[in-house]
Amino acid sequence: MRMSNMLVTTLREVPAEAELPSHKLMLRSGMMRKMASGIYNFMPLGLRSLKKIENVVREEMDRAGAQEFLASALIPSELWQESGRWDVFGPEMFRLNDRNERQFCLGPTHEEVFTDIARGVIKSYKQLPLNLYQIQTKYRDERRPRFGVMRSREFIMKDAYSFDKDYEGLDESYNKMYDAYTKIFARCGVECSAVEADSGAIGGTGSAEFMVKSEFGEDEVVFCDSCNYAANMEKAIAISEPSQKEELKDMEKTATPEVKTIEELIKFFNIGPNKFAKTLVYKADNKVVAVVVRGDREVNEVKVINAVGGAVEFEMADEKTVRKVTSAEIGFAGPIGIKADFVLVDNEVANMYNFIVGANDTGYHLVNVNYGRDFEGTVGDFRNVTSEDKCPKCGGKLTIARGIEVGHIFKLGTKYSESMGAVFSDEDGKVKPLIMGCYGIGVNRTMAAIIEQHHDEDGIVWPLSVAPYHVIVIPAVIKNEEQMKAAEELYNGLKDLGVEVVLDDRKERAGVKFKDADLMGIPIRVTVGKLISEGKVEFKLRSSEEVEEIDLSSVINKVKEQFEKEEIKL
Amino acid sequence: MRMSNMLVTTLREVPAEAELPSHKLMLRSGMMRKMASGIYNFMPLGLRSLKKIENVVREEMDRAGAQEFLASALIPSELWQESGRWDVFGPEMFRLNDRNERQFCLGPTHEEVFTDIARGVIKSYKQLPLNLYQIQTKYRDERRPRFGVMRSREFIMKDAYSFDKDYEGLDESYNKMYDAYTKIFARCGVECSAVEADSGAIGGTGSAEFMVKSEFGEDEVVFCDSCNYAANMEKAIAISEPSQKEELKDMEKTATPEVKTIEELIKFFNIGPNKFAKTLVYKADNKVVAVVVRGDREVNEVKVINAVGGAVEFEMADEKTVRKVTSAEIGFAGPIGIKADFVLVDNEVANMYNFIVGANDTGYHLVNVNYGRDFEGTVGDFRNVTSEDKCPKCGGKLTIARGIEVGHIFKLGTKYSESMGAVFSDEDGKVKPLIMGCYGIGVNRTMAAIIEQHHDEDGIVWPLSVAPYHVIVIPAVIKNEEQMKAAEELYNGLKDLGVEVVLDDRKERAGVKFKDADLMGIPIRVTVGKLISEGKVEFKLRSSEEVEEIDLSSVINKVKEQFEKEEIKL
Repeated sequence: MRMSNMLVTTLREVPAEAELPSHKLMLRSGMMRKMASGIYNFMPLGLRSLKKIENVVREEMDRAGAQEFLASALIPSELWQESGRWDVFGPEMFRLNDRNERQFCLGPTHEEVFTDIARGVIKSYKQLPLNLYQIQTKYRDERRPRFGVMRSREFIMKDAYSFDKDYEGLDESYNKMYDAYTKIFARCGVECSAVEADSGAIGGTGSAEFMVKSEFGEDEVVFCDSCNYAANMEKAIAISEPSQKEELKDMEKTATPEVKTIEELIKFFNIGPNKFAKTLVYKADNKVVAVVVRGDREVNEVKVINAVGGAVEFEMADEKTVRKVTSAEIGFAGPIGIKADFVLVDNEVANMYNFIVGANDTGYHLVNVNYGRDFEGTVGDFRNVTSEDKCPKCGGKLTIARGIEVGHIFKLGTKYSESMGAVFSDEDGKVKPLIMGCYGIGVNRTMAAIIEQHHDEDGIVWPLSVAPYHVIVIPAVIKNEEQMKAAEELYNGLKDLGVEVVLDDRKERAGVKFKDADLMGIPIRVTVGKLISEGKVEFKLRSSEEVEEIDLSSVINKVKEQFEKEEIKL
Repeated sequence: MRMSNMLVTTLREVPAEAELPSHKLMLRSGMMRKMASGIYNFMPLGLRSLKKIENVVREEMDRAGAQEFLASALIPSELWQESGRWDVFGPEMFRLNDRNERQFCLGPTHEEVFTDIARGVIKSYKQLPLNLYQIQTKYRDERRPRFGVMRSREFIMKDAYSFDKDYEGLDESYNKMYDAYTKIFARCGVECSAVEADSGAIGGTGSAEFMVKSEFGEDEVVFCDSCNYAANMEKAIAISEPSQKEELKDMEKTATPEVKTIEELIKFFNIGPNKFAKTLVYKADNKVVAVVVRGDREVNEVKVINAVGGAVEFEMADEKTVRKVTSAEIGFAGPIGIKADFVLVDNEVANMYNFIVGANDTGYHLVNVNYGRDFEGTVGDFRNVTSEDKCPKCGGKLTIARGIEVGHIFKLGTKYSESMGAVFSDEDGKVKPLIMGCYGIGVNRTMAAIIEQHHDEDGIVWPLSVAPYHVIVIPAVIKNEEQMKAAEELYNGLKDLGVEVVLDDRKERAGVKFKDADLMGIPIRVTVGKLISEGKVEFKLRSSEEVEEIDLSSVINKVKEQFEKEEIKL
């Protein structure tokens, strides 16, 4: 591509709306432009990288034996009613009516569609296993679209669904996808960890998220420094050490007027937060759930939801409910005598001695409270892990990092096949529900994650595998015939080899061209300048500061070497 | 691909809903499945062909210097309000609100989006010409979705927009697209004619439709048997020969009680339809338009709309309006004394003598009426061409055929750039509106059109260029080790060559395999049967009845030959 013919839309200024490096750089390098909140148009430069990521995904999916398919984005409501999700899915779902007032949604996910296809075409175990995937546009009306394509409302997703006759088959399908995902993200040049993820709420039997570590990630991930344990915060197991043993003291009721928050309690009693147990009241659909955790801990809502057998709607209880179940104002809730459908007591609290809780009486707390003696409840792991906790697998030190979820693999089991009647005849002639798995990759988000890990202050530093172009040839002075002739020859030579090359033939100063090349992140830069009179050019990798003066004739070999090094086929 | 791993979903029965051969065959061969009225899911087999068509389109667009881009399908209403089309676009546009009650549509077309992009990125004549295209999903809520993907509600379209600094540039961009389209359809194996199309209603300055002749096409196309004249019915020029001269007779009012239709008039007066002029009353927005054509002619509404300067809404006038402007019941409208905003008189009527018209008086007609003497109006071409008419270019015989519109190229001029302020600075420093062209190809419809032209009673007969697979290798008896071994070797040999090959290793009778291969339309079939003991196999092209017995060792060369013959690179 000649840059004079190319739509170059680089920006010098940092767009005000963008916070994240990837978001800023995708706008500044002219890869995309905003159409509306959370909706972007991909410009030619950005689309090239996007398509390369798609192709990496496609190749590895094909290699894993999956077959590509393409579903519509418009999905009739009937399918979602069958699975029971039409009324459950919140405002994230874009809904619309057609001219005959028939209801549709813009698919935020495609479980129903794939299950419908499967029940239509799969009759016998002989057709199994089957893995269908698509690279398709999804729609989610995010409450707060942000960070560019990291959380957008129209985005490209690879979603795959596997169908097996039994759970062993599902394990195999799942593991194939695990391996394929590992390869995909490695080929895209992102460092990525597969972490255990919660699967309770969706009713599955196993799940892993592929997380790219990034300080700007929206998710918290717990890693063990010593072993390979990694889990997202929702799922990470909190191991609660027993407290130092104390003799049980008599419980007392103490007046604590105007003392409502943990901070106020610490001040009032002049002891540490680990001597308090706070009681939080939630509503899980129509049930009231009281959760008791140590004063300085965070409740893990996903663990709570799973413990109560799932909930469509889950939120902090409103003031009225709290008053009703505690018979007190907000700030004085406690586990003793609370009128809740569930009382969940965190492991840590069950192991504490002589602690303080709200008295369920406005203006009072109870001191020297002990689990078992003074109250009971369901004991379990209901809190978030902290960096003080130990690895549940090896006891090692845990680190909590932020990450970007780029992929998710999930054992669905029979959740959809049962509700939608997707069955097959097994070898024994019995009709059984299909055993399903689902596997997603956010394609645009992967693109942003790559940039998060590959940029510097001058711009993007694309890995060769997903760069919009491989090489940029810059004649320093285009009016200089010798330079221009050598640049053209090099450009054509590389093109003939199958290298994707840009010739910056614009009437701009070399400095401007360097800046644009750096911003766009083209991995290999060859500058044809004054040295051409000695048959030499400058060869520079975007990822390195080093500028090598090499013979014009050796450029092609240097480029080939770089391809070999990054294991990219030419 | 081994067929035992492939999702084969061929159907023996003809689906009841399908009328068109392409629709029937796409369902029967398992290329796609219906999701809802006018909405289809593409199964792996169908998607392979669809992607090949996309790639042909992509290659030729790139070759013509266009740059690929990708816009969102969700478009905010504001853009359409700017162009003035938000209120104008009818129920074909899917509209929806986001969670903040902001209005969006699912793009039925993308003029506004591309114009918006252009005004954002194009500043100077130096950036011109520019041609941006995308291969993207479009949405149109058709009143009557039908014929499978021929007229569907969610479909893939290639749309391109060119931006030039002047009309000479637009002509050049337009001609490049004309050539690219010609190549694209040729490579897809469809016989296709570029026909003149109307452009008045959209306000452009030139337009051509690429039509595939097909008895099931929804459009009428007028071809000259002698020269290269071709136009769609909307645009085709009707040349009206002067009638044989007669002396003008005195006009008379005749009572014609209960005689309202042309048929009744013919009977009543006992003369041919060419002695009548019928007057049809339309409403073009708020204006009343009376159109006078010969009794046996059809009014061409597009020509009428253009003659009155365009209309957003155009329809036959309601009974009340007809009564008001004619002062008579329906059936007695005539040009004399009619209270219309426009009276349009077809060329043919202006050339007739002593004809009969409605009297604008219930129960009466006027005889011996003559244009000029008895009434006036705007004379022009307002009727559809018939096969009795002569070619407007050479006077030759015209044929009217049905066709499928697969592509449309269009000189938009400044319609959108002016209304949306998409301007650039020219060499002379002046700010001018961009001169635009737009160019569309219906990708799914092209697929259906290919099948319309390439099928027989057994199934599809894919051209090699867009076939889902090139070759199918069928071992007649898979339990026969010698056959299976040879088939496997051939399969691997062809795969290594880059040929897309299916090995039908299913436990089915050879007859079933042949039927499926024919239905799916795989261009080359190699059967490994009994003859393998003599080193021979059966080689058959799907497009021919001939079965050749050839040496196993020569199959690869035969396949290569076929690729060369159809000019497909391996």
